Amino acid sequence: MENTVIRERLSRLRAVMAKAHVDYCLMPTADFHNSEYVADFFKAREHFCGFTGSNGTLVVGFDWAGMWTDGRYFIQAEREMAGTGVTLFRMADEGVPTINEYLREHMREGETLGFDGRVVSAQLGLGLEKDLAPLGVRIECDRDLAGESWPDRPPLPLNDLLVIDDALAGKSAEEKLSEVRKALREKNANAFLLSSLDDICWLLNIRGGDVACSPVALSYLFLTEERVILYLQEGEVTADAAAYLDRIGVERRGYFEIMEAPDEFVAKDTIVLYDQARTGYALMKKLTAASDKAGTKTVTDRNPTLLLKAVKNETELKNIREIYIRDSAVLCRFLWWVKTHVGKEPITEVSAAEKLDAMRASLPGFLELSFPTISAYGANAAMMHYEATPEAYAELKPEGMYLVDSGGTYFGGTTDVTRTILLGPVSDEVRRHFTAVAVGMLRLANARFLRGCTGRNLDILARGPVWDMNIDYKCGTGHGVGYMLNVHEGPHNIRWRSIEGEKEAEILPGMIVSDEPGVYIEGSHGIRTESILEAVAGEKNGDGQFMGFRMLTWVPIDTDGIDVRLMQPAEREQLNAYHAGVYERIAPLIEEPEIRAWLKEATKPV
Amino acid sequence: MENTVIRERLSRLRAVMAKAHVDYCLMPTADFHNSEYVADFFKAREHFCGFTGSNGTLVVGFDWAGMWTDGRYFIQAEREMAGTGVTLFRMADEGVPTINEYLREHMREGETLGFDGRVVSAQLGLGLEKDLAPLGVRIECDRDLAGESWPDRPPLPLNDLLVIDDALAGKSAEEKLSEVRKALREKNANAFLLSSLDDICWLLNIRGGDVACSPVALSYLFLTEERVILYLQEGEVTADAAAYLDRIGVERRGYFEIMEAPDEFVAKDTIVLYDQARTGYALMKKLTAASDKAGTKTVTDRNPTLLLKAVKNETELKNIREIYIRDSAVLCRFLWWVKTHVGKEPITEVSAAEKLDAMRASLPGFLELSFPTISAYGANAAMMHYEATPEAYAELKPEGMYLVDSGGTYFGGTTDVTRTILLGPVSDEVRRHFTAVAVGMLRLANARFLRGCTGRNLDILARGPVWDMNIDYKCGTGHGVGYMLNVHEGPHNIRWRSIEGEKEAEILPGMIVSDEPGVYIEGSHGIRTESILEAVAGEKNGDGQFMGFRMLTWVPIDTDGIDVRLMQPAEREQLNAYHAGVYERIAPLIEEPEIRAWLKEATKPV
Repeated sequence: MENTVIRERLSRLRAVMAKAHVDYCLMPTADFHNSEYVADFFKAREHFCGFTGSNGTLVVGFDWAGMWTDGRYFIQAEREMAGTGVTLFRMADEGVPTINEYLREHMREGETLGFDGRVVSAQLGLGLEKDLAPLGVRIECDRDLAGESWPDRPPLPLNDLLVIDDALAGKSAEEKLSEVRKALREKNANAFLLSSLDDICWLLNIRGGDVACSPVALSYLFLTEERVILYLQEGEVTADAAAYLDRIGVERRGYFEIMEAPDEFVAKDTIVLYDQARTGYALMKKLTAASDKAGTKTVTDRNPTLLLKAVKNETELKNIREIYIRDSAVLCRFLWWVKTHVGKEPITEVSAAEKLDAMRASLPGFLELSFPTISAYGANAAMMHYEATPEAYAELKPEGMYLVDSGGTYFGGTTDVTRTILLGPVSDEVRRHFTAVAVGMLRLANARFLRGCTGRNLDILARGPVWDMNIDYKCGTGHGVGYMLNVHEGPHNIRWRSIEGEKEAEILPGMIVSDEPGVYIEGSHGIRTESILEAVAGEKNGDGQFMGFRMLTWVPIDTDGIDVRLMQPAEREQLNAYHAGVYERIAPLIEEPEIRAWLKEATKPV
Repeated sequence: MENTVIRERLSRLRAVMAKAHVDYCLMPTADFHNSEYVADFFKAREHFCGFTGSNGTLVVGFDWAGMWTDGRYFIQAEREMAGTGVTLFRMADEGVPTINEYLREHMREGETLGFDGRVVSAQLGLGLEKDLAPLGVRIECDRDLAGESWPDRPPLPLNDLLVIDDALAGKSAEEKLSEVRKALREKNANAFLLSSLDDICWLLNIRGGDVACSPVALSYLFLTEERVILYLQEGEVTADAAAYLDRIGVERRGYFEIMEAPDEFVAKDTIVLYDQARTGYALMKKLTAASDKAGTKTVTDRNPTLLLKAVKNETELKNIREIYIRDSAVLCRFLWWVKTHVGKEPITEVSAAEKLDAMRASLPGFLELSFPTISAYGANAAMMHYEATPEAYAELKPEGMYLVDSGGTYFGGTTDVTRTILLGPVSDEVRRHFTAVAVGMLRLANARFLRGCTGRNLDILARGPVWDMNIDYKCGTGHGVGYMLNVHEGPHNIRWRSIEGEKEAEILPGMIVSDEPGVYIEGSHGIRTESILEAVAGEKNGDGQFMGFRMLTWVPIDTDGIDVRLMQPAEREQLNAYHAGVYERIAPLIEEPEIRAWLKEATKPV
């Protein structure tokens, strides 16, 4: 069936493209800050092709359109784009061209590629320049073609700033600013152009509400040795926030005035550091032009805030450990409810998620969900980032498995946890998969390793038991997690593949990282067991600084899915020790005897 | 006690340096080809400081000298350089400057750094240039200062070339040349300057005898689309070799004429590929000058021969599998002999090594040892690359442990194997270490993983059990192994650390790699268990190409050192399966009932 809504939107876009003499129009999934989750205002890619996932780039030509996304979303994208006429390009699959390869193949001399230079990162834009300029292709980056063809576009979000107490942040903005300035000097820079929303919020100890599931404010920051200039919508600045920003010496400018910052602040002895992967192409062009004009240079490097933010301070760690226990207790209650009520009252993926979200919202200090809850029954769980909707959802039955991946942002931390539970009988094969995933999660959590290791050294610990079955999960094993900030945070991660042009980051004491192996069998079932770990220093001796992890998540792994015969004694001991830890921490938070008895049973040794 | 021999040699060198107006003289461990093992002619670093290890760089100033080496050699270097006045710099230890850092700190404007530009790689030389030129330091690379101060220098080796039958090589030189030319075209080059001795031998299916434990001939090769020019000492070319080289169209020039190759062959449409890490600095200078003059460019990349040589062909693999069984049988006999004769007749580290070397030499097809046998008793085994000498050796007693690391080059393959055996009682701690090393070796050998993995993804499998005890071994877990060539071969390896500027290489089917975790406790004991693995393709499915390893080495792991209580059942099964495989393959090669009975006992299930 044709999707006439999308087809009409594409026609409107093509009309604007024709007037602007643009032959191909590119739209990534990004706001002006390369955020992972974006406000509705920025959801142009979704508007013009229907695909709602968190990663995808749409390219529209006059008689063709294509959308590139990664392995997590192949199934979902195919479903959501059915009837739109947009071709799905499965990134990293054999024989599938990259966007640049596709454009190089199809664009002709004299043609124009258009994109909004504010939503395309400098890195991406420079790559397109490099690949297309030799063909004689022109780049038009100063027009927002999507915006011009989108009459009912949602407005730019406008929400109050929130100031975080130094006691809650663990470190004052002044201290953080001085650390960043020190890091700049080490890179031979004396100014800093920062576009990453979570980095800005972390640095100034503020939060916002402009992006769903991400407590950040739309803003830019320009920092010199003496000045801090924050660019944001003045309507977001409450009286409290204004007083606070004044007190710590932060000047304010309008959000869109950032484009004038380079001309205003770059003098001949100004060396601005900026991050090519996290700065818009158009802004980078302004900055390099201003630097050229002033006769100075720029330094491109990873935002120094990224690493400083990733290594949590003692206050943050203390709060995180506590909030994870309280958040885990919520999930325990919820899993008890699903396990004991399924088949007795109607439960759907949507109603289950609503229940869990409401339970979380009732916790003191709750701010918002850290991402939309993934509530997936049966074969739906094979889609890693499945989202049930009121239009399309499954009902839970007392058979097969149910996967729930969820988290909250609280005063005191951001959580993320996945458990898969059995609602009834499953096959031996499913139990084999379930057991391997549990073993992998525990193996990584119990790792000991030397400081200097990155996630690439460790990934096989979690993934090995899955590989041993000739199965892979097409995503990383783990990501960093923010503190009252984004649920996905860098620079570290747990992955086995190296990513072209991306510097690996060592796992350092105080970093938070997820541990989430899985098995996803299309059309059949999906299993993911995700716990969050804190990296900690162990013994230091002549061989180096040994490291390990502290468990933060305390939710039972459903032993109904475990086939004990497939576990080694040491693995059983790890599982039992984990479950003893769950009961010890969670039982005191559960008053109802019935749920407590269930927890006792769910955590008894195998 | 002063080492007057070394001190006098240094005085002689300083006199030559003074005349040449050179303030610091640098000597790496290398021949003109950056070989790992070098002929005596090239052992200048050893001559001038006494250190005999396989990695070290000597820097000599007028009133100071320093020698940099890595963790494998700290103990040995300290001992060998005692009394020489040369300072040991422990590479990678905290606070120890690199050579470049040291020179940057100590050299002054107008001073000169001298080195023989033929023995310093382009990479190293360019790094020195970059770091020292800004200080106004001059580089003198056209004089062989060491040679000028070394009256009794051994002559350049001169040994007959050997031609390898196509049936033994598995692929003709013509086929290999065409593969290399294809690889050059993919890198947009049409000529190739090759200095690596083993790559030249592999490419032309020849062998030589110019370097101990390395069946290679001193040579260079220059390749164009039409021509192959081999530079070597004409005295090495037998009538057979001459006829063969003529037949396959290889032109010959004198060894030292290579310096004229760039001027002779580089025209305006010649694009020469060369490997900066494996080409001499002086030759690189000639090449880039000739290319500049001709108005063309060069391409620097890893030698394409490296990867082609590393992936063994079916003939090579078949021969390797066979030769490893025969070589393993020799080691089994030897271990039986040591275990049953120690304490009953005098055995020293030296006499044991001589016995093993003679046993190996009696195998049909034996060419030479693949490296000097490491025969180390007790605390000596804590030195990874210990070499007993007639002047300094230990006697084996019926207590503690004995480590033997050895191998041979045969028609049909190059072997490398280490076993550590108990000669008497050991402590519980030693058994804990011994068991962890065995478990680590087996864990890597039994790994399953996806194609695309490099050694950095896999290292933790072997190293993890050692890390779990808060111990590390300061070296990689594994290295590639040649076919009738060098026992250490790239580009792949098994290591956890990334090496600056070195591209990681995927583990591909047909690659050979060692698996050698260890525990080294200075002054106490050393344990290494090294087996050699062949990477093999497993199941291919929608998730990718799965891979694993085939075991090539079949020698018992001394179960006297194993504490079964520290092993998981699956690990015990891996050990028992391995031992069953040892007995099955080796017993038929052992006629003596006594040794066979011993082997049966040594391989019985634990």
